[in-house]
Amino acid sequence: MATGYLWHELFGWHDTGTNTGLFGSNPAAGLQPLQHFENAETKTRMNSLVGASGLLEHLVPLAPRPATDEELQRVHRAAHVQRIREESALPKGGDAGDGLSPFGHGGFEIAALAAGGAIVAAEAVMSGQVTNAYALIRPPGHHATPETGMGFCIFSNLAVAARHLQATGQASRIAVVDWDVHHGNGTQATFWEDPEVLTISVHQDNVFPPDSGALDEQGAGAAAGTAINVPLPAGSGVGAYLDVFTRVVVPALDAFGPEIVLVASGFDASAADPLARQMMTANGYRQLTELLMDAANRLCDGRLMMTHEGGYSPAYVPFCGLAVLEALSGHQTGIEDPFDPIFSGFAGQELQPHQAEVIDAAAALAQQLATD
Amino acid sequence: MATGYLWHELFGWHDTGTNTGLFGSNPAAGLQPLQHFENAETKTRMNSLVGASGLLEHLVPLAPRPATDEELQRVHRAAHVQRIREESALPKGGDAGDGLSPFGHGGFEIAALAAGGAIVAAEAVMSGQVTNAYALIRPPGHHATPETGMGFCIFSNLAVAARHLQATGQASRIAVVDWDVHHGNGTQATFWEDPEVLTISVHQDNVFPPDSGALDEQGAGAAAGTAINVPLPAGSGVGAYLDVFTRVVVPALDAFGPEIVLVASGFDASAADPLARQMMTANGYRQLTELLMDAANRLCDGRLMMTHEGGYSPAYVPFCGLAVLEALSGHQTGIEDPFDPIFSGFAGQELQPHQAEVIDAAAALAQQLATD
Amino acid sequence: MATGYLWHELFGWHDTGTNTGLFGSNPAAGLQPLQHFENAETKTRMNSLVGASGLLEHLVPLAPRPATDEELQRVHRAAHVQRIREESALPKGGDAGDGLSPFGHGGFEIAALAAGGAIVAAEAVMSGQVTNAYALIRPPGHHATPETGMGFCIFSNLAVAARHLQATGQASRIAVVDWDVHHGNGTQATFWEDPEVLTISVHQDNVFPPDSGALDEQGAGAAAGTAINVPLPAGSGVGAYLDVFTRVVVPALDAFGPEIVLVASGFDASAADPLARQMMTANGYRQLTELLMDAANRLCDGRLMMTHEGGYSPAYVPFCGLAVLEALSGHQTGIEDPFDPIFSGFAGQELQPHQAEVIDAAAALAQQLATD
Amino acid sequence: MATGYLWHELFGWHDTGTNTGLFGSNPAAGLQPLQHFENAETKTRMNSLVGASGLLEHLVPLAPRPATDEELQRVHRAAHVQRIREESALPKGGDAGDGLSPFGHGGFEIAALAAGGAIVAAEAVMSGQVTNAYALIRPPGHHATPETGMGFCIFSNLAVAARHLQATGQASRIAVVDWDVHHGNGTQATFWEDPEVLTISVHQDNVFPPDSGALDEQGAGAAAGTAINVPLPAGSGVGAYLDVFTRVVVPALDAFGPEIVLVASGFDASAADPLARQMMTANGYRQLTELLMDAANRLCDGRLMMTHEGGYSPAYVPFCGLAVLEALSGHQTGIEDPFDPIFSGFAGQELQPHQAEVIDAAAALAQQLATD
Ligand SMILES: [Zn+2]
Ligand SMILES: [Zn+2]
Ligand SMILES: [Zn+2]
Ligand SMILES: [Zn+2]
Repeated sequence: MATGYLWHELFGWHDTGTNTGLFGSNPAAGLQPLQHFENAETKTRMNSLVGASGLLEHLVPLAPRPATDEELQRVHRAAHVQRIREESALPKGGDAGDGLSPFGHGGFEIAALAAGGAIVAAEAVMSGQVTNAYALIRPPGHHATPETGMGFCIFSNLAVAARHLQATGQASRIAVVDWDVHHGNGTQATFWEDPEVLTISVHQDNVFPPDSGALDEQGAGAAAGTAINVPLPAGSGVGAYLDVFTRVVVPALDAFGPEIVLVASGFDASAADPLARQMMTANGYRQLTELLMDAANRLCDGRLMMTHEGGYSPAYVPFCGLAVLEALSGHQTGIEDPFDPIFSGFAGQELQPHQAEVIDAAAALAQQLATD
Repeated sequence: MATGYLWHELFGWHDTGTNTGLFGSNPAAGLQPLQHFENAETKTRMNSLVGASGLLEHLVPLAPRPATDEELQRVHRAAHVQRIREESALPKGGDAGDGLSPFGHGGFEIAALAAGGAIVAAEAVMSGQVTNAYALIRPPGHHATPETGMGFCIFSNLAVAARHLQATGQASRIAVVDWDVHHGNGTQATFWEDPEVLTISVHQDNVFPPDSGALDEQGAGAAAGTAINVPLPAGSGVGAYLDVFTRVVVPALDAFGPEIVLVASGFDASAADPLARQMMTANGYRQLTELLMDAANRLCDGRLMMTHEGGYSPAYVPFCGLAVLEALSGHQTGIEDPFDPIFSGFAGQELQPHQAEVIDAAAALAQQLATD
Repeated sequence: MATGYLWHELFGWHDTGTNTGLFGSNPAAGLQPLQHFENAETKTRMNSLVGASGLLEHLVPLAPRPATDEELQRVHRAAHVQRIREESALPKGGDAGDGLSPFGHGGFEIAALAAGGAIVAAEAVMSGQVTNAYALIRPPGHHATPETGMGFCIFSNLAVAARHLQATGQASRIAVVDWDVHHGNGTQATFWEDPEVLTISVHQDNVFPPDSGALDEQGAGAAAGTAINVPLPAGSGVGAYLDVFTRVVVPALDAFGPEIVLVASGFDASAADPLARQMMTANGYRQLTELLMDAANRLCDGRLMMTHEGGYSPAYVPFCGLAVLEALSGHQTGIEDPFDPIFSGFAGQELQPHQAEVIDAAAALAQQLATD
Repeated sequence: MATGYLWHELFGWHDTGTNTGLFGSNPAAGLQPLQHFENAETKTRMNSLVGASGLLEHLVPLAPRPATDEELQRVHRAAHVQRIREESALPKGGDAGDGLSPFGHGGFEIAALAAGGAIVAAEAVMSGQVTNAYALIRPPGHHATPETGMGFCIFSNLAVAARHLQATGQASRIAVVDWDVHHGNGTQATFWEDPEVLTISVHQDNVFPPDSGALDEQGAGAAAGTAINVPLPAGSGVGAYLDVFTRVVVPALDAFGPEIVLVASGFDASAADPLARQMMTANGYRQLTELLMDAANRLCDGRLMMTHEGGYSPAYVPFCGLAVLEALSGHQTGIEDPFDPIFSGFAGQELQPHQAEVIDAAAALAQQLATD
C-alpha cells in the first residue's frame, strides 16, 4: 500500500490579502485590515507537520502541474476561466465571484495548479502508482460552480479531476464524499444530471452557501437520487459524524459501486474552527477515513483520493490532516492530538436525538439508492 | 446617562507567547510555534474600532490603577499572589496555574492593572460618575479561583471589584451575570458561600473547565440558591440566549435585587469563535445588554459594569463589543455588523427544543430564588 | 510649556496589503505575499509606548479632522486628489502613483485625515494652545508632489499644513526640516519657488527617490537658495547628524528666521531600519530635537511641529519616537532605550572625514543663506 | 555538477518567542511583545522560493540527522551541551547564553539537527555525492564558541561539521569563509590554534560581538596568521565586497590550499537588513559565490559547502539565497531580483577610499599567508 501526497510551495502563495476575515478592509464600515480566514497558514502548517513528524518519508510525493484550459472547461464555462485569467493579470488581482473570495496578481496560475494537482493525484490512484492520495492544494474548490467561483473557491478542483478521469477513460463511475462543513454545492451542481457521479455532502445545516444543501436536493433527470445531502445541526460532534458515515455514506457507496472515491476534505467541521460550529476531532477524522478506506477496499481496490478544501484553525488543522494521512498510509507517527482531551470532553460529542432525525432521513436516501 | 470606558495600552502587552493556540510549542509533540488563542489582537482591535468609529467621543474615559495586594487578597490566597509575582520576575515569566495560561516577564503588573481597572470601573458606577461602564481589561479573570489562576486568567478581576465594593461599603448586594461561553467557575467559587452575591453563568455545556458549571451547582450554606448555571448545548444561537436572559437571568435579578449588576463579558459565544460552538451575534449581544439595562434601571438606577473576559475572534469581537457599547451608551455609530447577514442565517438561530429543556430547568432555579 | 500629540486609530487602518515589502505579490516574479514595509505596526507601537509609558498623560491630545479638497489642492493638482478619491472607491483601493504605494478601499479618507491632522497640529502651535506638537499621522507625506503620490505617500501632509498656515494668515515664513532618511522631494517641489518657505532635507545620498536630493538642488527664482539638501553617505551615524544640525540646519534656521519650524520626522535613519543604512539612535534623535527646540525658542517662541514620516523598524521606532516626545515635552518617562548600548557601539558613530566633506558643502549653503 | 540542498521543516519550528527584536518583552522597560529578529520567516520564505521557483527540482535534496553529543563536543564543552539540553526540557525553554538568544521547549533537538545538517552537507560534498551544497539550517551557528552560545547561535554548526571531517579523516585542511555581516567569532575561536583551518571573516566593523573581529586578531601559536578579519566600515556595498573577495579571500584561499571551502552564509550584509548597515545585493552574493566556486574549482575539485547563518529581511533574503543557489547549481530560474534596481542605485555601491584602506590591510594578511 502506498499513499500519494501532493503539495507545492505555490499553494502557500495564493494571496487572499488583508481582508477582515471575510470582507475587504473598509474604514467606513468598521473593517480594520486583518487577514482572510482562508489564508496560507492552515495549509502550510499542515504540510510542515507532515514533514516535521517524519510522516513525509512514508508517503509518495506527487508534483502538481497546471490544469489546461481544456481541462478546466470540462467543468467551467469558458467565460469563467477567462474572467479569472483577466482579473489575475490586474496588479491587485480580483475576486472569484462573490466578493468574499479574493485572489492576488497571478492567482490564476495558482488556481490552475490546484486543479491540476487534483488531476495528478487522481491519476496516480487510478494508475495504481499509489493506492490512495491526499492532494494538499489551495485555493479550495468545492463551492466553485460551472459558472462562477465563490466561497474562497476559484476552480472546482475535485470536479475537474473527476471529469478528467471520465474524459480520458480512466474511470467512469465516481463517488464524491464531501466532509467539509459547508455544502459542496459546486461539485453537486457539476454532476447534478450525471448518473455516473454520486455526490454526498455532509455539512452544517444552512451555513454556506445560504439555502443550499437541503435534504431534498437529490439530483435531476437520470441522476435523480445521486446527490445526497446531510445537513447536520450546529453543534454536531464525532458521534453524529460516525453515525452519518455508518448509516448514510458507506451504504450509499456500497449501493453506488464507484471505481474511485473522491473526498472533499475540509477540516472546518473541527471543534476549533471559526467558520462553523461542529465538534469533530482529529481522531474523528481518522475514523471517518478508516470507514471510507474499508468501503474503498471492498468496492474499488482501495482507490481513494482526497482534495483539501476548507479548515480555518491554524492550530488544529495540522493535527486533523496528520490523522487522516496516518490512516491513509497506515503509518503512525506517534504524535497524539494534544487538543483531544479537551475537545473530546465537550458535552454533546455523542449522537444527539435531534441529530439522529436528520441522519434517519438521509439514510433513507442511501437506502433508496440501493433500491434503485 | 454617561458610560465609562476603561482601557490601557498595557493590556495589549500581556505576553502569551508563541503557544500553539493552547500549548507551548514543542517539536516532539508536533506543536509548531504560533500564537496563543488569548492574544492581544481581539482586544486591541475592539479598542481600535471604538476609536475609529468615533464612539469613544461619546464615552467617559476611565484610567486603571494597579490593584494592591490587599485588594487582590480579598479574593485570592496570598500564596497565589506571591507565586504570580515571583514567576513574573523570571526572564520568560510563568503560567497562571494550569499550563494553558502563560504570561511574560512583568505579567504581574499587567494582571494587577486589569484587576484595578475593574475596581475603577465599578467605583465609577457606584459613585454616580457614570451610569454604567465597560472595562476592556486583559488578562481576563472569571476562571481564576481564590487558590489559582487558570483558563488564561490570573486574577479574578470582577470578583476583586465586587469584594472591593463590599469592603469599602460602596455596595453590599451584588449580582454577577457571566455571558462568557465558558463557565465562570472562579467567580462562582469566590462567592460560593456569600448570600450577598448572586452569580449567574450562561455557558456552553462542559467546555471549560471540564465538569464545571452543571445545573446542580447552586451555592452552599446561607448562599444556597445564589449560584445559577445555565449550561447550554453546543450550537445554541441568539434565540436560546434571549430565552435564557428573559426566563432566567432577568427573573433572577429581579428576585435578588442587587445594588449593581456586574457582567463578565466574554464574546466567545459568538458564531465565529474558535474556542466554543455557539452562534451569538453582535446584535444578539446588543439585545442581551438592553435586557440587562432594563433590569438594572428597574432595580438599581441602571448601575451596570462589565469586565471583558474571553472572545477569540479578532475579526468579530470588535463588532460584538461595539454593539454592547452602543447599547450601554445609547449612541449609535451607524456601523452595521457586516457578518450579521451570514451568521443570522445559520440554521438553528431560533430556540430549539433541546435547548429549551435546559433553560426550563434553570428558570426553575430563578423561580426558586424569588420564592426563597 | 505644553506639547500637543495627535493620533487617530484610523491611521492604523491604512491598508498597504500583503506586498512583499515593496512590490505586490506575484508568483511568477518570486514575490510571496508578506507585508508592506510601510505597515501599521511601527506607528501603532509608537502610540502604544506613548500610552504604556505614561507619557500620554503629560501631553495635550489633539484630534484630527479630514483636510478638505480646497486644503489639499493648495498643494496638489485637483486631478491627483480626484484620482486618489476614485481609486479609493474601488473594492481593493489603488496606488498613490509609483506602484510602490498601495492603499485600500477608503484610503482617501485616511489620507485626508492625515493631512488634516498636520493642519490641526500646526494650528495648535500657531494659536498658542501648545508650544510644540507631534502629529503621529499615517500615511506619510513628504514624497508626495503636487502632481502625484509616491514613496508610500499620498498627500503631502506637512506641505498642506504649511500652505494652510499661509493661506489663513496664521504664518507666512516657515522652515521645514526633514530628517527622514529619504529625500523630502515632495515638500521641496511644493516650495521650490516660494522664498517664504525654507526646506532642508537631511537624507542618505541617492536612496529614494533615485537621483533626487543632490547638493545642487537649491530652489528656483526668488526662492533660489531656500532649498538645502544634505545627502549623507551610507553608514552615517549620530556624529554626522549632530554635525549636520549644528553646522547646517541651525545656522540656516537662524539665517532664515521662520515663524514656525515644521519637521518631517521619519525614523528611518535609525540603526535598525531595513530601508536605509544610517545609524541614528533614539538618543541621537533626542539631541536633534533639543537643537531644534533651542533654535525655535530663539527664533519663534519655540514653535515647532513635527509630522511623522517614514521609519520601518517596529522594534525600534517606538523608542525613537518616545525620545523625541520626551524632549519636546520636557517629561522623562524613565524608560531607557534598550538598544542604545548596541547601536552606540557600532564602529563609525562619530563623524567620519568623508561625511564631513558633504557637510562642509551644505554648511556653505547655509552660510550663503545668511549672506543673502 | 550536482548541488546538494538541505532543509528540514523543524528548522522553521525553532522558537525564538515574542521578543521585541532582541529583548524579552518587558512592560516596565517599554518592550512590547513582537517577534525576534531571528524568527523562522527569512528561512522558510527562502525555502519556499526555492520550491516555488522550480529550482528545487535541479538540486539534490539532503536530509539532516541530529548531531550526537560526541560530535557536538568536538567543538563545545560538555557543560555547554548539557546546559542547553537541560534548559530545553523546561516548559518555556531557555537561552543560548547571552540573553539575546532564546529557544523554546525542545530547542536542543532542533539545534542538534542543525549541526547534524551541516555534517550531512559537508559529507555529501567530501564523498562526491554532490560537488557543492547549501545547508539551510536554523538556528545559526557562527557566534557559538566552545564555551557558550550567543548571538542567536546555540551550536557552532559549521565548526562541528569541520571538526567532523577532520575526526573522520574525510578532510584535514579546511578553509572557512564567513560573509555573514557579523564577526564569525565562534568559528574563529574554535580554530584559533589550529593551523589546519583557515578562518576568514568579512564583517561590518564592530557590530557584533562588541570589540570582536579586528584586523589584529590573527590566530595563535602554530596557527598564527590563519585567522583573517576584514572589518568593513558601515555603508559598504557590492564594490567593497567584490574587492575583499578578489584581493583578500581568494588569494588567501589560494595561499592556504584547502581540501574544502566552508562558507558561513549570512545574508545580513544585504541592503535591506535591519541588523547591519551594508548594501549587498542578491547579484552581489551571486558574484561572491562565483569567485568562491572558481577558487574551489582550482583548489579542491569545486568542493564548497555553505551553512546558512544570519539574514533578517524576510522580503529580501529569499532573493539572496536564490541567487547563491543558482550560482552553485548553474541553473537559472529566470527570476530576477525585483529589489536590484533600487538597491543597486544606492550611492556608494562602488568601492570607496575609506573602505579600500581596510581592505589593503587585510590583503597584506592574505599576502603574508602566501609567504609563510
Ligand atoms: Zn468549508
Ligand atoms: Zn471564555
Ligand atoms: Zn523615509
Ligand atoms: Zn549575522
